[in-house]
Amino acid sequence: MNFIENGDVLSDIAQYLAEDIGRGDITTQSTVPEGVRGMGKFLAKEELVVCGLQIADAVFQILDAESPGIDAFVNEGDLVESGTVFGSLSGFADVLLTGERVALNLMQRMSGIATLSRKFAEAVEGTNAKIVDTRKTTPGLRMLEKYAVTVGGCKNHRFGLDDGVLIKDNHIALAGGITKAISSAKEKVGHLHKIEVEILNWAQLREAIEAGADIVMLDNQTPEEAAKLVEMARGMNPNVLLEASGGMNLDTVRSYAEAGVDLISVGMLTHSARAMDISFKIKTV
Amino acid sequence: MNFIENGDVLSDIAQYLAEDIGRGDITTQSTVPEGVRGMGKFLAKEELVVCGLQIADAVFQILDAESPGIDAFVNEGDLVESGTVFGSLSGFADVLLTGERVALNLMQRMSGIATLSRKFAEAVEGTNAKIVDTRKTTPGLRMLEKYAVTVGGCKNHRFGLDDGVLIKDNHIALAGGITKAISSAKEKVGHLHKIEVEILNWAQLREAIEAGADIVMLDNQTPEEAAKLVEMARGMNPNVLLEASGGMNLDTVRSYAEAGVDLISVGMLTHSARAMDISFKIKTV
Amino acid sequence: MNFIENGDVLSDIAQYLAEDIGRGDITTQSTVPEGVRGMGKFLAKEELVVCGLQIADAVFQILDAESPGIDAFVNEGDLVESGTVFGSLSGFADVLLTGERVALNLMQRMSGIATLSRKFAEAVEGTNAKIVDTRKTTPGLRMLEKYAVTVGGCKNHRFGLDDGVLIKDNHIALAGGITKAISSAKEKVGHLHKIEVEILNWAQLREAIEAGADIVMLDNQTPEEAAKLVEMARGMNPNVLLEASGGMNLDTVRSYAEAGVDLISVGMLTHSARAMDISFKIKTV
Amino acid sequence: MNFIENGDVLSDIAQYLAEDIGRGDITTQSTVPEGVRGMGKFLAKEELVVCGLQIADAVFQILDAESPGIDAFVNEGDLVESGTVFGSLSGFADVLLTGERVALNLMQRMSGIATLSRKFAEAVEGTNAKIVDTRKTTPGLRMLEKYAVTVGGCKNHRFGLDDGVLIKDNHIALAGGITKAISSAKEKVGHLHKIEVEILNWAQLREAIEAGADIVMLDNQTPEEAAKLVEMARGMNPNVLLEASGGMNLDTVRSYAEAGVDLISVGMLTHSARAMDISFKIKTV
Amino acid sequence: MNFIENGDVLSDIAQYLAEDIGRGDITTQSTVPEGVRGMGKFLAKEELVVCGLQIADAVFQILDAESPGIDAFVNEGDLVESGTVFGSLSGFADVLLTGERVALNLMQRMSGIATLSRKFAEAVEGTNAKIVDTRKTTPGLRMLEKYAVTVGGCKNHRFGLDDGVLIKDNHIALAGGITKAISSAKEKVGHLHKIEVEILNWAQLREAIEAGADIVMLDNQTPEEAAKLVEMARGMNPNVLLEASGGMNLDTVRSYAEAGVDLISVGMLTHSARAMDISFKIKTV
Amino acid sequence: MNFIENGDVLSDIAQYLAEDIGRGDITTQSTVPEGVRGMGKFLAKEELVVCGLQIADAVFQILDAESPGIDAFVNEGDLVESGTVFGSLSGFADVLLTGERVALNLMQRMSGIATLSRKFAEAVEGTNAKIVDTRKTTPGLRMLEKYAVTVGGCKNHRFGLDDGVLIKDNHIALAGGITKAISSAKEKVGHLHKIEVEILNWAQLREAIEAGADIVMLDNQTPEEAAKLVEMARGMNPNVLLEASGGMNLDTVRSYAEAGVDLISVGMLTHSARAMDISFKIKTV
Repeated sequence: MNFIENGDVLSDIAQYLAEDIGRGDITTQSTVPEGVRGMGKFLAKEELVVCGLQIADAVFQILDAESPGIDAFVNEGDLVESGTVFGSLSGFADVLLTGERVALNLMQRMSGIATLSRKFAEAVEGTNAKIVDTRKTTPGLRMLEKYAVTVGGCKNHRFGLDDGVLIKDNHIALAGGITKAISSAKEKVGHLHKIEVEILNWAQLREAIEAGADIVMLDNQTPEEAAKLVEMARGMNPNVLLEASGGMNLDTVRSYAEAGVDLISVGMLTHSARAMDISFKIKTV
Repeated sequence: MNFIENGDVLSDIAQYLAEDIGRGDITTQSTVPEGVRGMGKFLAKEELVVCGLQIADAVFQILDAESPGIDAFVNEGDLVESGTVFGSLSGFADVLLTGERVALNLMQRMSGIATLSRKFAEAVEGTNAKIVDTRKTTPGLRMLEKYAVTVGGCKNHRFGLDDGVLIKDNHIALAGGITKAISSAKEKVGHLHKIEVEILNWAQLREAIEAGADIVMLDNQTPEEAAKLVEMARGMNPNVLLEASGGMNLDTVRSYAEAGVDLISVGMLTHSARAMDISFKIKTV
Repeated sequence: MNFIENGDVLSDIAQYLAEDIGRGDITTQSTVPEGVRGMGKFLAKEELVVCGLQIADAVFQILDAESPGIDAFVNEGDLVESGTVFGSLSGFADVLLTGERVALNLMQRMSGIATLSRKFAEAVEGTNAKIVDTRKTTPGLRMLEKYAVTVGGCKNHRFGLDDGVLIKDNHIALAGGITKAISSAKEKVGHLHKIEVEILNWAQLREAIEAGADIVMLDNQTPEEAAKLVEMARGMNPNVLLEASGGMNLDTVRSYAEAGVDLISVGMLTHSARAMDISFKIKTV
Repeated sequence: MNFIENGDVLSDIAQYLAEDIGRGDITTQSTVPEGVRGMGKFLAKEELVVCGLQIADAVFQILDAESPGIDAFVNEGDLVESGTVFGSLSGFADVLLTGERVALNLMQRMSGIATLSRKFAEAVEGTNAKIVDTRKTTPGLRMLEKYAVTVGGCKNHRFGLDDGVLIKDNHIALAGGITKAISSAKEKVGHLHKIEVEILNWAQLREAIEAGADIVMLDNQTPEEAAKLVEMARGMNPNVLLEASGGMNLDTVRSYAEAGVDLISVGMLTHSARAMDISFKIKTV
Repeated sequence: MNFIENGDVLSDIAQYLAEDIGRGDITTQSTVPEGVRGMGKFLAKEELVVCGLQIADAVFQILDAESPGIDAFVNEGDLVESGTVFGSLSGFADVLLTGERVALNLMQRMSGIATLSRKFAEAVEGTNAKIVDTRKTTPGLRMLEKYAVTVGGCKNHRFGLDDGVLIKDNHIALAGGITKAISSAKEKVGHLHKIEVEILNWAQLREAIEAGADIVMLDNQTPEEAAKLVEMARGMNPNVLLEASGGMNLDTVRSYAEAGVDLISVGMLTHSARAMDISFKIKTV
Repeated sequence: MNFIENGDVLSDIAQYLAEDIGRGDITTQSTVPEGVRGMGKFLAKEELVVCGLQIADAVFQILDAESPGIDAFVNEGDLVESGTVFGSLSGFADVLLTGERVALNLMQRMSGIATLSRKFAEAVEGTNAKIVDTRKTTPGLRMLEKYAVTVGGCKNHRFGLDDGVLIKDNHIALAGGITKAISSAKEKVGHLHKIEVEILNWAQLREAIEAGADIVMLDNQTPEEAAKLVEMARGMNPNVLLEASGGMNLDTVRSYAEAGVDLISVGMLTHSARAMDISFKIKTV
């Protein structure tokens, strides 16, 4: 029972097919004889982390309940070189042609996120920091994109606004200060939720820890500043978790990891990953 | 009556909000007093083409039917410099905070596509070629992304598989050749549809034109090859439309335009545009 | 993969069943023992073209996933005489009784359209004209009705307002003339769409062809007038398609075909076809 | 609070618009300037009973929440002569054009049913018989069609299989006879439901009345046979209601009414009414 | 074909699962290894009437299409003693854990209603009165709750406002009296519906019977008053059905039955039945 | 922006109305003249905590967008005596009659939960313990029922399986022990979630605290056992939260509170609260 078997994901995929197919694939219907069978091969046209095999399966199974599923030559999450045929799929030729674009659109995007995530995960290898994603996902695709992040070896931050308390500058201002915001949140949210607070400087950090924040997000600090804040925070409460955030990229991320934070959130994992180049070549059989 | 007023778009946006909010924005609900009003400012943190103002409006209006709408200081499609505050929105502070992320996720993505589209459109300025998008869009967001392409000054190719006949290599192989594929399509599709055929070389191009193709897509040609094929095609039928396709980027696109094609399709407009950096700063009022 | 396997069609049929069954078939539930099996026979009570076998199948399969499907003694589209039993279906007696009305309502209506379409197709046999339907379909049933038209041997015009450009008198008036309307449409719609224009007289026809119309609809002309317009149009552009339209019936349609038009659109195929008389007699087995 | 304000009806109409408009009215969008206002006039091109004014209103209000609604010159249900302009509607020209076909498709069909119903109602005027409809309605449109029947002056039979007990030949056979079927139904259905039984002859009629049927449907009798059965039935139970059914038309219906039945069910009211000819002429204002 | 196979019921259950599972069962997913199989046993922790076996089956089948279904050791509707294991279910351990709460929530509530209904049915045993439920059901669960009522041995009153005419004090006041209300209802509702009227005293009862009420509901009478009204009513019309209503409980219900009414409606069957205590113990296998 | 304005809640209420109204309120439609206005008064027929005013408002606003809303004479959450008229509502008489049952069904149930919750809250007044609810809610109504719990003065536990980690006996067994279960959960769930573990005895409690549990649920202990476990747990980790659970009732709950636990979860708040007796009397105005 994984999230892909979830009814919502399947109904989303059916909607994606409807978006692309509309009233029918008039090219295929008017040129391809019914009943002809074919086989398609998934080819990586650049180095990439394979992601979305089950999702692509679902695309074709919605079109043809008898679809046998992709015969995968690698595992979800494997890094493959350019030129690798990583899977094949048999089926009615018209089904393969009609489903191709949606399957590829999903897989190319998910593989793009997984590939980028892997690079970030590798960049901090050997440190104690974990890379986490953000809520800067494509509207409608959050579950798929957060899954791709984990396939690439990173972790997930909140899945939504109901999935954790993260008090930011605006909340602090409106609540009347960090202490008030934290105590109000502690009073009102369920006992299973921790409290995270975003801070900009040492004064805020100290107030947050004193007020009982479980996690503190150091926003837009240099690695050097972050290192100092980490040291001072740990001095106050060795159990507090520390997260660095703000404009991370592959060049800078390791220096934050080495500053001693526990978590580094990276928006570009999902908002700006490039689609990987994957093709699906069909032959009749 | 534009597409944004379409019920489907609004219900999609409501779904995006549900995806992010889930059972409720527990941070805002537990820290921000009810009834406090605020104003948020949309700030471009890099040079970008503004796109998605009405979509962002819709986000907030779904949360609060009395939302006054964004007070925009520029027009949809305007290019603004980094540092420009291009709009503001008043409302209940909790509404602004809860809707912020979805509004930005949409606007940053749409502005990313519009900005990249504008660059492509400028790259072919002065030629007869038009840049068109592809079906390589984010599943679920096709209407919004194709709209962003036009805001950036490019044109739309097919909206879906029912929206035009585009006979590709697989169709040709399965139909038993270009001539058979074209005549079968002409027989079966409605009289309002033109027929486009993808070809790889001169022999195929000639066969396509002889069989009555209205448009021919020159796939994966060099600019020089494309120029030759264009010349020979025009010699056979001056009315045939010619489209170049395959791995276009900002460096190469103009040489294809100068090769004389009518259309150049660019997948990366939608599958790999980077999100623009836009922030939404809220103040109480 | 035909349109009946489309998820939307199945969900529409499920809705039709819900409309008829509501909270339950209280007559059958209170009089027919559970588990009794029966067999129903589809009987044509007048001469008709059989249409809707797969649709009727779907009705019963929604009620009972194990339904074996109709055992059809004829093919979809066959003309059968009054008194012909053209298919039978086994199943639980309660399923047969509960699904009967919806299955017949669909099949009688579809067979009515197919039967009438066949008469129109026969009426123009031997000419170059094809009969096409219109958008004057029953709201909600367009896909089924347009399918029935093809089963009867006619062709489909546009499936919807997004499926082709057809510029009518109102568009012309609002655009500021035929030439302006055509050039505006050419500028704005995708390159895969042809342009059809509705005209009332020779002056309009000439302007439309000069402005580059691909198809011209001759509205409300006598056959004689149509013949003249066809001749003059062909003189200007031998490739232009010509369509006759307006109040066609079985008595007049052939004279339009003989006037030389390519297409004749007939609204009554879908808006006024009479339901065929079909009964479904059930016996226990 | 009438049925047209029901959320389901509005959502059905929105679906009809989606069926017709798809991704957009490309003709209107590419030829008609935005913001131009117009006025359309509803013209009866034959004598008809006007039906569907509120439904047509709803069509345009879904497209434009500010639509003022039809300015009707007659009442719903009025008989108007050919040539009558019976209503007008102002609005944005593009809205009027885009909504026209769905509004007319609904109104022409509903007016067709209302007009035919009125003829049947007039045919039995002065007798004690009421004309009732059947479940032979267009799938998806039952509420609208049954409403149109009442606008034409007839009555509604069951709205669905849950809305009344009507024991037919198949139920009788499967239950093991009329007496068993009636007693089983009386035992199992709620105390607010009457029991109607379909019979073919005097023996069945007698058994039905003895078993406590509240209503008896005389199926496929001649008027003379019906008159005899009515007399004998009334002799047994003066309160039993009697319904005639089977192949009624405008020529024969009065003779059944004069045979003394209380109800006459007429399937063709809904399954074979012809669409009325109504046009919608738009002018700019 | 029973109501549980109805698509609406299944989609409701899927919604209940979505309500509980949200984005995923994070406890099970993070602690239970995938692929481990288990068996759960349903244990009655107090004496109860078992109700909801098929519904619980459906819960697990939605999570795992291969779920074998509950192996039930008793029949739906059986009374079991405290301590009885009445069924078991094999499956993936994670599926059993994730579905447990929704299955129990439904079954405990349905068994609660069935158990209470059985007590009421037993309380009037030997009299001519039947216990019926009301429309005081849990919003969204009416079909399941009314089913549970019958499993406990009672009968169903109306399923909704469209399922029968029940004229209450407010209707009478607004219609201008009992006689007017009844005659208006007789005129307007379909011929298959009986008319029930709620009355408070003998004057109203007499008027209702004279006006042709089929059923009369005696509201808020003592058993003695009810007995008198029954006698007088039967004197006027021996066929009229009489229903007692208002604040019934297990102590008082038999005295109403003995007063001679045909029906006694009991709101607490559905609005205040206590959930039965049922546990589901899982073991690995 | 509270949860009642949430689109899902409104669409649920619309579904509840559809469940009750079906094809129409035939009694009201056939007896009550259109356009008559009335006023209804909400009367508490027993002492109760008022809950659901906004929900009842929503019911009537769905039926009539112009409904003015309830004029409430008390605040949500107020305790009112038997006989109190706590609100009134004006509107069309037919709207008031048709919406009455759904509004009352919701309000009676919510007030029942709020009233019972208040009793539990009062029972532990003066101690440090808070009463929390469980996931034993009515399927489909969780949001409304958990809201009613807070109106009565108690707190909410998890809203669903995704809303917190609660490791129970089955998870422990399948994970291979408490320590493994906790460390696996810490590894896999997001950093914003605390970990709660259910234990049965001191050995388990000690293991849970040593493994880093944030909250420990003491299941099915006597108050005396609970007091001992609390003391020992606090000795190990003064910050651990302790929750008592299992068969709580109004007689026993205070002794658990006095045992020193932080939280006491009470299933009966939602699974077995009795509906409060509320009537809605309508008068014409």
